[in-house]
Amino acid sequence: ELGSFDKDINKIMPEYVKSFQFENSLLPSTWIVVRIDGCHFHRFSDVHEFEKPNDELALNLMNSAAVAVVEEFNDIIFSYGVSDEYSFVLKKDSWLYERHASQLVSAIVSLFTSMYVLKWKDYFPHKELKYQPYFDARAVCYPSSDILQDYLAWRQVDCHINNQYNTSFWMLVKSGKSKSEAQKCLKGTFAKEKNELLASQFSIDYNTMPVMFRLGSSVFWDKEEKMVDEAEVAGKFRKKIVVEHCNIIEKSFWKEHYHILE
Amino acid sequence: ELGSFDKDINKIMPEYVKSFQFENSLLPSTWIVVRIDGCHFHRFSDVHEFEKPNDELALNLMNSAAVAVVEEFNDIIFSYGVSDEYSFVLKKDSWLYERHASQLVSAIVSLFTSMYVLKWKDYFPHKELKYQPYFDARAVCYPSSDILQDYLAWRQVDCHINNQYNTSFWMLVKSGKSKSEAQKCLKGTFAKEKNELLASQFSIDYNTMPVMFRLGSSVFWDKEEKMVDEAEVAGKFRKKIVVEHCNIIEKSFWKEHYHILE
Amino acid sequence: ELGSFDKDINKIMPEYVKSFQFENSLLPSTWIVVRIDGCHFHRFSDVHEFEKPNDELALNLMNSAAVAVVEEFNDIIFSYGVSDEYSFVLKKDSWLYERHASQLVSAIVSLFTSMYVLKWKDYFPHKELKYQPYFDARAVCYPSSDILQDYLAWRQVDCHINNQYNTSFWMLVKSGKSKSEAQKCLKGTFAKEKNELLASQFSIDYNTMPVMFRLGSSVFWDKEEKMVDEAEVAGKFRKKIVVEHCNIIEKSFWKEHYHILE
Amino acid sequence: ELGSFDKDINKIMPEYVKSFQFENSLLPSTWIVVRIDGCHFHRFSDVHEFEKPNDELALNLMNSAAVAVVEEFNDIIFSYGVSDEYSFVLKKDSWLYERHASQLVSAIVSLFTSMYVLKWKDYFPHKELKYQPYFDARAVCYPSSDILQDYLAWRQVDCHINNQYNTSFWMLVKSGKSKSEAQKCLKGTFAKEKNELLASQFSIDYNTMPVMFRLGSSVFWDKEEKMVDEAEVAGKFRKKIVVEHCNIIEKSFWKEHYHILE
Repeated sequence: ELGSFDKDINKIMPEYVKSFQFENSLLPSTWIVVRIDGCHFHRFSDVHEFEKPNDELALNLMNSAAVAVVEEFNDIIFSYGVSDEYSFVLKKDSWLYERHASQLVSAIVSLFTSMYVLKWKDYFPHKELKYQPYFDARAVCYPSSDILQDYLAWRQVDCHINNQYNTSFWMLVKSGKSKSEAQKCLKGTFAKEKNELLASQFSIDYNTMPVMFRLGSSVFWDKEEKMVDEAEVAGKFRKKIVVEHCNIIEKSFWKEHYHILE
Repeated sequence: ELGSFDKDINKIMPEYVKSFQFENSLLPSTWIVVRIDGCHFHRFSDVHEFEKPNDELALNLMNSAAVAVVEEFNDIIFSYGVSDEYSFVLKKDSWLYERHASQLVSAIVSLFTSMYVLKWKDYFPHKELKYQPYFDARAVCYPSSDILQDYLAWRQVDCHINNQYNTSFWMLVKSGKSKSEAQKCLKGTFAKEKNELLASQFSIDYNTMPVMFRLGSSVFWDKEEKMVDEAEVAGKFRKKIVVEHCNIIEKSFWKEHYHILE
Repeated sequence: ELGSFDKDINKIMPEYVKSFQFENSLLPSTWIVVRIDGCHFHRFSDVHEFEKPNDELALNLMNSAAVAVVEEFNDIIFSYGVSDEYSFVLKKDSWLYERHASQLVSAIVSLFTSMYVLKWKDYFPHKELKYQPYFDARAVCYPSSDILQDYLAWRQVDCHINNQYNTSFWMLVKSGKSKSEAQKCLKGTFAKEKNELLASQFSIDYNTMPVMFRLGSSVFWDKEEKMVDEAEVAGKFRKKIVVEHCNIIEKSFWKEHYHILE
Repeated sequence: ELGSFDKDINKIMPEYVKSFQFENSLLPSTWIVVRIDGCHFHRFSDVHEFEKPNDELALNLMNSAAVAVVEEFNDIIFSYGVSDEYSFVLKKDSWLYERHASQLVSAIVSLFTSMYVLKWKDYFPHKELKYQPYFDARAVCYPSSDILQDYLAWRQVDCHINNQYNTSFWMLVKSGKSKSEAQKCLKGTFAKEKNELLASQFSIDYNTMPVMFRLGSSVFWDKEEKMVDEAEVAGKFRKKIVVEHCNIIEKSFWKEHYHILE
């Protein structure tokens, strides 16, 4: 019933229609960061009654989705997540999807989302997933490993600042203050003051709170212990994906894990 | 434990780190098409034993994910799907995500994926989702409704050509031919010859096969019948999302549904 | 003396080095406008003692450079200039330089500059060109002829507003006011008030001032009178480039010259 | 006579018209190379009877235009020219024109062209400039100084290969061969064979030919001798622009002139 039309269109049109396609190719030899962010996750976490200010299970679910992404795309050499965001770092010389921004961004965000929904029941066996969560994403290039490390440090500092604020905020709310009263209390306070407030009013030592809340999560391929009894050649290591909550602002982390940015 | 570092970085670094971000803004006043495609869906459909050449349930699942996308983003005025791909058309004057390509592409593909996984059990209650499916996506702009219609016609012609080929191919395989024999049989044949092969060897009238397989699926907001008894003002209609399998190559479709591209 | 190096580099490096090149291709089937602007022309016009607020010879030189650009690039169907800026419109379906932004922009601005310097002595036979003038340029796409006309109208409205202001400003300065006094005088005044000021204080009827100053210059291919005695077929016209100072805000111009945007 | 129209358009339209503008911003912290190329210079050099294969005066004119560009834009730290092309390197952290590709490319090519035309009579006092030359240009980013050096080495290798070919070609032509015979002679020959041909048939030692022809021209800010009698502080140098014909493939050049890429 498409009649002769398909022959005609097949001969001439596709080239013209395709000429409108364009590729935004990311500069070669630069570190690509794809950062995904939850869309409307404020509402999503309310509806699904996530614990405030941090829901450990929800964070573990994010981490597990990130592990799946790191497993699937070999060119991802590091990833860092906090709250409802995750940054994936592709190695400098990756040619994944020919470095086309749209495809990199879409494939990574889609796989992450897929895993998030698929694994939901593992982390929340007694909580129904009431509607579909989704994320948006963007790509950024960093031309040197120094600036890349600055980028990651920036995300971890953000994690720290937000967590300190949110912890103080929710403690005040749970102690009976209204949300706007709690906001007023914290307005303009410095890190030190928030720590003192937590200590004096709530007997909380901020530095003893769970490290995942304070430092976020890093997912990367690490070197496993050398297994001598499996007759491995000395100096050879097996690699496995690890989820750690370490200080990535300090240069010592990058020195110790020098293989990541090599 | 982040010490004085966070204050320092907070004062100077973020602006520098952020200066590397860029936005690929799509030209205003053009129709944006976001097309998603299944990644490695050949394997995915094998592992999940989809029927060949068309699995009705799998297509319905795609359509249901598309409906969720059309529902969420009001600026999507039409979408068309076939096999493991779906094209979403945003209205010409949309400012969704400020027309930033990465965000449009990622949000749409993420929501689609989320819904696909979430609804899996509704369409395949007896089939476990064995691993996470994912899609990639890209955006294209079309500066006029004529070229937009050409684009959609191109996708439908592709649907037709592929379906005719696949139907013939799988009938040959099911009748005992090897895959490479079937390929050889069909090499260089025209539409008419494939139809004749289906008719003579397998007593199949191609034109009576399910219309979803031959024409793909269109998802859009249609005007509902006027409901007089609800005392609506004459000329007013309620709109609802429909899934139809219609010929969108013919201009008559667009005339009849003139409100879509208005 | 380049030794064996050249063989090596020739074998491997160029592809890698070239992989960093990128093209910013402009969306097909849209009107491309390349607008050039004088760099530091305030100083340039001071040093070369251009008449204020408008130097007829300098404007004629700009127009003559524009004519050369229109002559060289057949795909330019219209251009509009005012002061030290000029906009060149390429036809919608142009594939000049494969629609690569950098090349379009650079070739046009370079040819314009070349002509400006080359023709200087024709317009200023007694004035030495004391140093090299230069221009920058950018490309913009417009997806419909309506928006293209809006763009051109915008430039002509700008011309009008600036000319009215500059005419008033320089009359005040020539009458003895300091530049800052003149500025103060005009601050916040409307078109009508400026016209009244010119009329009452300086006996100038703004609307009788040279039309090139008030409306800018349009350069385009026009249809010449049919030349019957050259035995041309009826209905055929020769085309020639014209420089006109017409109202391009009014739609009547575009109706009369319908062939320009065809 | 623009009536009330200008008020209306001024209130609403410019923002809309301007929304179509876009900027292609080049990645920060990368070396920007703007390379200009003569358009139709084959014809231009024929019409102006440039000497083959190298016209010393024409090359000097190119160099003098390049010096003007390097003088005007402080962020250009090196430039390299050969034949009718010139590459300008901006320092890594330049924010010239906010790193907008179109503006960088257009301003540099325009200034270069302007100077080329303006200085013509200084280099060719007895040769009229018969028509306007022009150049196109493009920008490329290099994320490290190593790749930048590879880029420049690539251009110099190209200079070498082309010069060796052209020298041999024109010697054959001048000796009586037709152009196509000369081409055939040289097809598939290696560097060494061309040198032997030049030596045996024309008694030319390639390596004693003018260094500008063999190595192209580098224009950059060099450190001047310390002037003790002007009472300068020890260790301070004045900088001046130099035009040199040096081997920039060798790393030794970059070590000696370490300040260029600092």
